[in-house]
Amino acid sequence: MDEKKDAEERKKLGILGGMGPEATGVLYDRITGHTIAEKDQDHLDIWIYSHAGLPDRTTCILRGEEERMREMLRADTEKMISLGCEYLAVPCNTCHYFGDVFREFPDITFIDMIGETAGTVSERGISTVGILATDGTLKAGLYHRALSDRGVKPVVPDEKNQKLLMSLIYDEVKKGARGEMEHFAPVVEYMKQAGCEAVILGCTELSVFAVNYSLKDAFYVDALDVLAKRCVELCGGTWRD
Amino acid sequence: MDEKKDAEERKKLGILGGMGPEATGVLYDRITGHTIAEKDQDHLDIWIYSHAGLPDRTTCILRGEEERMREMLRADTEKMISLGCEYLAVPCNTCHYFGDVFREFPDITFIDMIGETAGTVSERGISTVGILATDGTLKAGLYHRALSDRGVKPVVPDEKNQKLLMSLIYDEVKKGARGEMEHFAPVVEYMKQAGCEAVILGCTELSVFAVNYSLKDAFYVDALDVLAKRCVELCGGTWRD
Repeated sequence: MDEKKDAEERKKLGILGGMGPEATGVLYDRITGHTIAEKDQDHLDIWIYSHAGLPDRTTCILRGEEERMREMLRADTEKMISLGCEYLAVPCNTCHYFGDVFREFPDITFIDMIGETAGTVSERGISTVGILATDGTLKAGLYHRALSDRGVKPVVPDEKNQKLLMSLIYDEVKKGARGEMEHFAPVVEYMKQAGCEAVILGCTELSVFAVNYSLKDAFYVDALDVLAKRCVELCGGTWRD
Repeated sequence: MDEKKDAEERKKLGILGGMGPEATGVLYDRITGHTIAEKDQDHLDIWIYSHAGLPDRTTCILRGEEERMREMLRADTEKMISLGCEYLAVPCNTCHYFGDVFREFPDITFIDMIGETAGTVSERGISTVGILATDGTLKAGLYHRALSDRGVKPVVPDEKNQKLLMSLIYDEVKKGARGEMEHFAPVVEYMKQAGCEAVILGCTELSVFAVNYSLKDAFYVDALDVLAKRCVELCGGTWRD
């Protein structure tokens, strides 16, 4: 009886992913692995669209090619609603640039990974934080706004280190490679020198990189981790750290 | 131009999963990890329903409670069709007992994990193979039929070892544990003594167990591996071993 009640109180989650697919896998595994479950039926019901064919987000933003992207995201969100999803997670930081599209629909609640992550940073009492993200995310100022709103000072890499990071994301992780630590370490070192108390892994490929190297240091605030936890909490599962 | 053509030739895959969710994660990761991709857009578009709330398959079969299950699977398959999926994969061996439901629909092709796995065993020239699966899968004779049709002799564990296996599946892996090797090794030893040239990991929780222990020996034919490869091939991606 209790069991049935629990199941009825749960909300269906929609994950609009594939940007890239590995990161979507990490989010799904994290949700599954951190949900307290004695049997399959204790897990959430989740619809995932691994829509790998969506255009590259950074390219869309930098070239001003936004309308087609918005149309596609709108169509995908409508599908999620038609499937009964009440919450929507999008495991791609850059895609949050188009967050207004997901907020157009009263029938589904968009779980804002960037806002949630900025909230976590603020709650931890961090006053200066580094943002490791794509050029698209930085250009759009997504983390800048969310952090500044909460009184946290954002720091970004200099041009040389940002290039290193973009290459790690696009030329290594997105191509299925593990990613070279020697391309990541100098960026982190730069952020430490710049006074950062922590850095946000603000691109889901960096979350994948963190899995590949088991980076669990509290210095890294993994946006995908924050999102996974909120998904489980909001949809009525029980999270265990 | 070529790129666009490739994308157009691809078929959308539906994965009806959540039985259990970890196994669905393994299938998705395997598809992603083994698809040759230079960028996100080289991956397949995949809809996944992690429908964890579906009833336990073995319980349904052993208690003869099949009709509600069939209705639910039918509804899920219709959703996949409405989303444009042309192929359907179901990463739960026991659920293949209800395979007739998935074959009712002319608009979607069911990728039969059990038939494909039996085919792989036969192609490898194996004449005697062990089946490691749930009581439900065994009682339904799913692998027995598929193997016998191809002239391969199936062997199952004795009662004691089958109990050990069921406990490993339900009391360990499905509860999120890694699973104890000492609960698996005696079963394998029994199968070897019984003359098996290979054993089929014919329950997706055993595929998860195999990941947890990096079991890559050719002695194990992992049904989830066979399924992942067929998904990529049939949907127009490029598989790399």
